[in-house]
Amino acid sequence: MSHAIAAAADLNAPPVTKILAEFVTSHPSQGWTPEVDHEAHRTFLNWLGCAIGAANHESVESSLAAIREFQPAPQASILGRKDKVDMGGAALINGISSHTFDFDDTHLKTVIHPAGPVASAILALGEHINSNGRQIIDSLVLGIDVACRVGNAMYPDHYHRGWHITGSTGMLGSAAACSRLMGLDLQKTTMALGIAASQPVGMREQFGTMTKPFHPGGAARAGQLSALLAKHGFTSSPKALEAGRGYMQTVSTKCDWSEIDRALGKSFEISLNTYKPFACGIVIHPAIDACAQLRAQGVKAEDVESIELRVHPLVLELTGKKTPKDGLEGKFSVYHGCAVGLIFGQAGEGEYADDIVNRPDVVALRAKVNATTDTSISEASVDVKAFLKDGKEVHIFVKNAIGSVENPMSDTHLEQKFTSLAEPVIGKEKTRQLISALWKLGQASDLKQILSLCTPE
Amino acid sequence: MSHAIAAAADLNAPPVTKILAEFVTSHPSQGWTPEVDHEAHRTFLNWLGCAIGAANHESVESSLAAIREFQPAPQASILGRKDKVDMGGAALINGISSHTFDFDDTHLKTVIHPAGPVASAILALGEHINSNGRQIIDSLVLGIDVACRVGNAMYPDHYHRGWHITGSTGMLGSAAACSRLMGLDLQKTTMALGIAASQPVGMREQFGTMTKPFHPGGAARAGQLSALLAKHGFTSSPKALEAGRGYMQTVSTKCDWSEIDRALGKSFEISLNTYKPFACGIVIHPAIDACAQLRAQGVKAEDVESIELRVHPLVLELTGKKTPKDGLEGKFSVYHGCAVGLIFGQAGEGEYADDIVNRPDVVALRAKVNATTDTSISEASVDVKAFLKDGKEVHIFVKNAIGSVENPMSDTHLEQKFTSLAEPVIGKEKTRQLISALWKLGQASDLKQILSLCTPE
Repeated sequence: MSHAIAAAADLNAPPVTKILAEFVTSHPSQGWTPEVDHEAHRTFLNWLGCAIGAANHESVESSLAAIREFQPAPQASILGRKDKVDMGGAALINGISSHTFDFDDTHLKTVIHPAGPVASAILALGEHINSNGRQIIDSLVLGIDVACRVGNAMYPDHYHRGWHITGSTGMLGSAAACSRLMGLDLQKTTMALGIAASQPVGMREQFGTMTKPFHPGGAARAGQLSALLAKHGFTSSPKALEAGRGYMQTVSTKCDWSEIDRALGKSFEISLNTYKPFACGIVIHPAIDACAQLRAQGVKAEDVESIELRVHPLVLELTGKKTPKDGLEGKFSVYHGCAVGLIFGQAGEGEYADDIVNRPDVVALRAKVNATTDTSISEASVDVKAFLKDGKEVHIFVKNAIGSVENPMSDTHLEQKFTSLAEPVIGKEKTRQLISALWKLGQASDLKQILSLCTPE
Repeated sequence: MSHAIAAAADLNAPPVTKILAEFVTSHPSQGWTPEVDHEAHRTFLNWLGCAIGAANHESVESSLAAIREFQPAPQASILGRKDKVDMGGAALINGISSHTFDFDDTHLKTVIHPAGPVASAILALGEHINSNGRQIIDSLVLGIDVACRVGNAMYPDHYHRGWHITGSTGMLGSAAACSRLMGLDLQKTTMALGIAASQPVGMREQFGTMTKPFHPGGAARAGQLSALLAKHGFTSSPKALEAGRGYMQTVSTKCDWSEIDRALGKSFEISLNTYKPFACGIVIHPAIDACAQLRAQGVKAEDVESIELRVHPLVLELTGKKTPKDGLEGKFSVYHGCAVGLIFGQAGEGEYADDIVNRPDVVALRAKVNATTDTSISEASVDVKAFLKDGKEVHIFVKNAIGSVENPMSDTHLEQKFTSLAEPVIGKEKTRQLISALWKLGQASDLKQILSLCTPE
């Protein structure tokens, strides 16, 4: 039987593990365009804001309590808190917090959330080994490239099989990034990728539980340990990714090897990274965007007679809750999304708090929103007409919502998102200083200033 | 596409996660026959000997060096060494050492090596929380039952797909055993199994590298962390094992749910556990057994004119090396196996040392061994004729080699194996005392005596 399987397996795969290890060890620092380098800074800033924002969530409290049972050394910081734990525990917990609000970044081609597993691992490791900002940015770009290229090769089969692809490619991104950060050579980096290949993390069945954000955290920790094991001479198969009984062929029926080295070192997957402007399912984003635009044009909630939406049928199928009772239900209500878009001009985690969902003016405006389905409108679009009490009518058509690849969030918008997440945890002044420090991360001689700004007063 | 998959999945699976969690939390202490309890002691003794025996192997040196980078608290002992690390690191490293010689136990139905992931996790945890011996034995039996039942449900498809089933079921056994050891309730034990379900460890491609023994170690550590997370309120899907996009259906096309609860709590998988008497591939075992029996009958190497083996063709196909150059090649030589079987009456790790493989008397006897294939002889058997210089002829037929389910190792033989592994590391006297303490583990009020006996002078 095992012979049958071996025969069924593709034994002519290219040396994927070595190709990626060579790329990670030999690609020059900042060997990419200024646009790619800027995207890396956007990715890091967005990730850090998500982690700080969730710093006091119960998923962080309970995972931190578990890690404390190991009496960890204070090697690395828990973002948004005064706690320090060992660098493995910090990689785990910051990975958990950054994905807890489901508000982080998305590589839409694969639905990988790439920053969590990579940034969580290298920031904790870098704090302990005193890396500089450039080393962090370089490792982030390369680690994300490794994870997303493996993801490109296996998506969609691997994902539809049941794997939460963020955690089942993230351990490779983390191992690659940590190897680069420690300056491991080709042979050791190959071993690190191999050790990581035996440690995928995450099943989709966990969505809706704390184990979903555990996936990027667990992947960050697994990849970091893999790099440390390799550093000390631990061995693995140099064909661990591509072999017949290696990782990729074991967990995916689709293995498109060309995705691994196509334009490797020339185009970077981080360029395709996107950031969620709103803390809810992507399908509501066009409607929220449109209502925020109404507000920007001076439309006030009290002026509104009614708001008429035309949306793709999927929007109501997934988010048709007309009268949500709490924040969680609010995330499945396009009506609530429109109300907070018009009243607040944003839909961050704060606009999904239970008290906001039940606030009289929000409930009243929600009741004035009507939605009709129209198959001629794409999932990415929305057509909104606001009928005002004075008889005026304002029409807005959104083709691609803010946050999409076609219509990315501006740096200013990313700063607003960051502020809405970080300010309640670390305060106004630290948030302001942290933002400007993060845009200059690539030139930072060490990580001390940024890490001290991440702790609450 | 995701809808298509959901439809393809078996959505009528029984509540496997809950069934196993309920079993682990509610089954009474020592709720099994004395034979099962004795098998648990044999399993633990055999596992501990393998771990102590490999305590100074490079796979342990390098993994310990990596764990030291986390500056771990001295919570739990590294077997066969004076080192202590945190309980997660100890679970990892003792799991690695116990499987390093590939000399540990085997649940032949699934080729799971069940002790490594479970015993490594509970001994480290138990040392830290001061468990007693009975709690260790109870957790060992229940944890192994959980891992092997999930293995029974998925084997062989899961294994042939490329998973090293020891590490891809072991995290569940470890989570179950650690939950039991800490007395977690049904709800938390369900969460622990669910968190562990997202952390399988191990691809078969790693065989022949240090990452193979990493698999039971990594699984032990993952399950232990899962139990600690659950203890502190971390959540997971209560259907993480059986759901359409849960663990089992994602990693195996075969999911025979009946294996989960058939005679659950009545028959125990640990009863089917076997122990390797010889430190080499199972296919050579009958020949070594036969030659050790020749020695027991008084046949000496210097009396031998020639030894004629009749073996199944597979034996020479896999282990036909006539003149091995070193210990590793020796493991693939049925001729070397016969030589050491007759000269030493055993074939432990010591008989595969390079100097033994090249010792003149061993080389000389090896040259006198001839093997012919005979398809009428089963893989489990061997027919051996020794022709002596004085003209005598001694005939031995082995139907099932020592160590098989049909012909298990005796307690005395297990003690000899343990001694051959432990004595070079912790010395004669400690080995003797440790053996008698291990047979009484179920009555031990704590683990202190056993753990102190596991350290070298």
